[in-house]
Amino acid sequence: MDIDNLLANRTKSMKASAIREILKLVSKPGMVSLAGGIPAPESFPMDIMPELVRRVFDKYGSFALQYDVTEGFVPLREELSKYLVRQHLSYSAEDIHITSGSQGLLDALGKVFIEPGDLIAVEAPTYLGALQAFNPYGPRYISIQMDEEGVVPESLEEILRKTKVKFIYLIPTFQNPSGRTTSLARRKRIAEIVQKYDALLVEDDPYSRLRYRGEELPPIKSFAPDHVIYMSTFSKVFAPGLRIGFSIAPREAASWLIKVKQGIDLHTSTFNQALASEYLAGGFLDKQLPKIVSLYAPKQKAMLEALKQHFPAEYRWSEPEGGMFIWVEGPEGMDVEAYYKKAVERNVAYVPGKFFFTEPGAGLETMRLNFTMSSESVLTKAIATLAEVLKTPR
Amino acid sequence: MDIDNLLANRTKSMKASAIREILKLVSKPGMVSLAGGIPAPESFPMDIMPELVRRVFDKYGSFALQYDVTEGFVPLREELSKYLVRQHLSYSAEDIHITSGSQGLLDALGKVFIEPGDLIAVEAPTYLGALQAFNPYGPRYISIQMDEEGVVPESLEEILRKTKVKFIYLIPTFQNPSGRTTSLARRKRIAEIVQKYDALLVEDDPYSRLRYRGEELPPIKSFAPDHVIYMSTFSKVFAPGLRIGFSIAPREAASWLIKVKQGIDLHTSTFNQALASEYLAGGFLDKQLPKIVSLYAPKQKAMLEALKQHFPAEYRWSEPEGGMFIWVEGPEGMDVEAYYKKAVERNVAYVPGKFFFTEPGAGLETMRLNFTMSSESVLTKAIATLAEVLKTPR
Repeated sequence: MDIDNLLANRTKSMKASAIREILKLVSKPGMVSLAGGIPAPESFPMDIMPELVRRVFDKYGSFALQYDVTEGFVPLREELSKYLVRQHLSYSAEDIHITSGSQGLLDALGKVFIEPGDLIAVEAPTYLGALQAFNPYGPRYISIQMDEEGVVPESLEEILRKTKVKFIYLIPTFQNPSGRTTSLARRKRIAEIVQKYDALLVEDDPYSRLRYRGEELPPIKSFAPDHVIYMSTFSKVFAPGLRIGFSIAPREAASWLIKVKQGIDLHTSTFNQALASEYLAGGFLDKQLPKIVSLYAPKQKAMLEALKQHFPAEYRWSEPEGGMFIWVEGPEGMDVEAYYKKAVERNVAYVPGKFFFTEPGAGLETMRLNFTMSSESVLTKAIATLAEVLKTPR
Repeated sequence: MDIDNLLANRTKSMKASAIREILKLVSKPGMVSLAGGIPAPESFPMDIMPELVRRVFDKYGSFALQYDVTEGFVPLREELSKYLVRQHLSYSAEDIHITSGSQGLLDALGKVFIEPGDLIAVEAPTYLGALQAFNPYGPRYISIQMDEEGVVPESLEEILRKTKVKFIYLIPTFQNPSGRTTSLARRKRIAEIVQKYDALLVEDDPYSRLRYRGEELPPIKSFAPDHVIYMSTFSKVFAPGLRIGFSIAPREAASWLIKVKQGIDLHTSTFNQALASEYLAGGFLDKQLPKIVSLYAPKQKAMLEALKQHFPAEYRWSEPEGGMFIWVEGPEGMDVEAYYKKAVERNVAYVPGKFFFTEPGAGLETMRLNFTMSSESVLTKAIATLAEVLKTPR
């Protein structure tokens, strides 16, 4: 039958994702993918999983397999309430809600807030998954400038002074894709600005616990509690396959987010929430986190050193204190995508940075490199190869 | 901050759910709830869960905790491909897609197909969770008549002849809320009609395996493969807290459903999909199903007998061969909701049937009774009490 003529307008406007096409090339055997954004399987606490499962069934029995409330499994929310105090977030279990991964909240945000044509302010570059969640609701985007210190507060203020945005979407720590972190001074300044303009800020914080150097920074939410929806996930510090995220929103926003979540998925997997709860309750996260950090830190170091050694002098890159990505900027006028096929032929894949910009033509000279999935020696070799490719005349 | 003025129009139009308010009364201690729609925890295969978990980690290791493709965990889709042949559905793993519960697909259907004002044809009465998933996308509903034999094909044909509907949504077997099953002859007739009018049918099939008497019927999908999106779930035959549903859609529709699912939740929990896969692969479902049936069948029998014994002569009710619900119709002009508070005072809760109708004023004399959550003796007593309440003059 003809499905095409049944599609909603929002669906018709969804293009085949260019990045998906590009990433298809990555699955070639022998490929070293610096293109992904996924945690190393060695970072998962496989050894404690049987114990976690045992605790879940001992403690919750059949409740762990039953339907649960949309807001989230209460014991997990209670554990998060205790855990988040150390991240400068003091909230009761009632204020913490569980989502089906971070993606689940991004979609719910789109559903609750975005009317076709609405403006959403995003970092340039920004996270693709957020755009993918928001796009079906038909927003327009306005880009906030970034530099080495993260979001430029003056750029945000100018946007808020000139236009009305539905919300601002930021990843202040070890941003995907840029790896950049918004400094403490700027976090405070951004908190002042959103309060001054009574603007809603979505603060996405998946990576902050993956810190290899330097000091943890408080989230913007801690400086502007009534104006920020804070969101994070267990995907990078436990296991992404469990699809457990969480959020703290101003109460009125939270009640709408819950209401739409009920229509989206009823609730997030009870069993997986119970596992996450026991992961926190048993102190397992505190034991696992140093292991994850000591797995990733040398990989990042190897990549940074290889970039320094091999990359052409006119290239610059971020040197984040944590996270999963390094952002490389080539000389102006350079088109990184043009080298993609050649790199893939040499078995190295990356993501051309232009895909992370909402403005056409922006970021042509940039690329995102991920270092979590390969060994140090493989990373070093891949960067050397990539440097050779980039030095080849087109 | 003022969240209200940031809401999308679709959100503003979401009313506080009247049924939620009604169900709040149910949590009173001592309440016998015939209002729910959830499986008995005794139906969960608790005894085999440790073995299932062990098999998952033995077989898949860290893959069970990693990100997975949006389409679903391949081994689960392969097991479903084999399993569904017995349900008259012969499809390859590529054609079977995993969803985050049935709700996940209902939401995706709304997102892919529904434009504000679009007509969706639904049974009268129909499943509330489907309306909750579709409503944010702004459809109008048109009701298809039902009788004791299920959907009335002539009513469906009249609708399709007169108007253009985006899709038809049916639960042909042991329907929620009515318990009714659309007969084999009518299934074939409906298949002819959707093909004749080139209409898209969503066939929701959560209950068909819960059959206590009579013979299994083939799904409508088996008679009109190109026009039907078939969907089902592990919630009633394994565990609802795992949130695993699945669907088989015409290929073009499937590709759009996958595309939007990526923005909604990336993918469904890998770990839970692996558990469901091993549940099928190990033959555990085949062993558990007779246990579930022998748990529910006597409950249903007890409720039917108590209705016969205690309910006033002017009441009629469905006598389904399976499922989780019995549908009671009072005399015309009767308002079942008016008795709700009195029933709750006597510690018996039910759902007034009017909530399952999309047309205002319909179904005032109806109620939905669930029998899965209480013992036979409790059910018998509750029905006797409810009969007393209904006999009281208002």
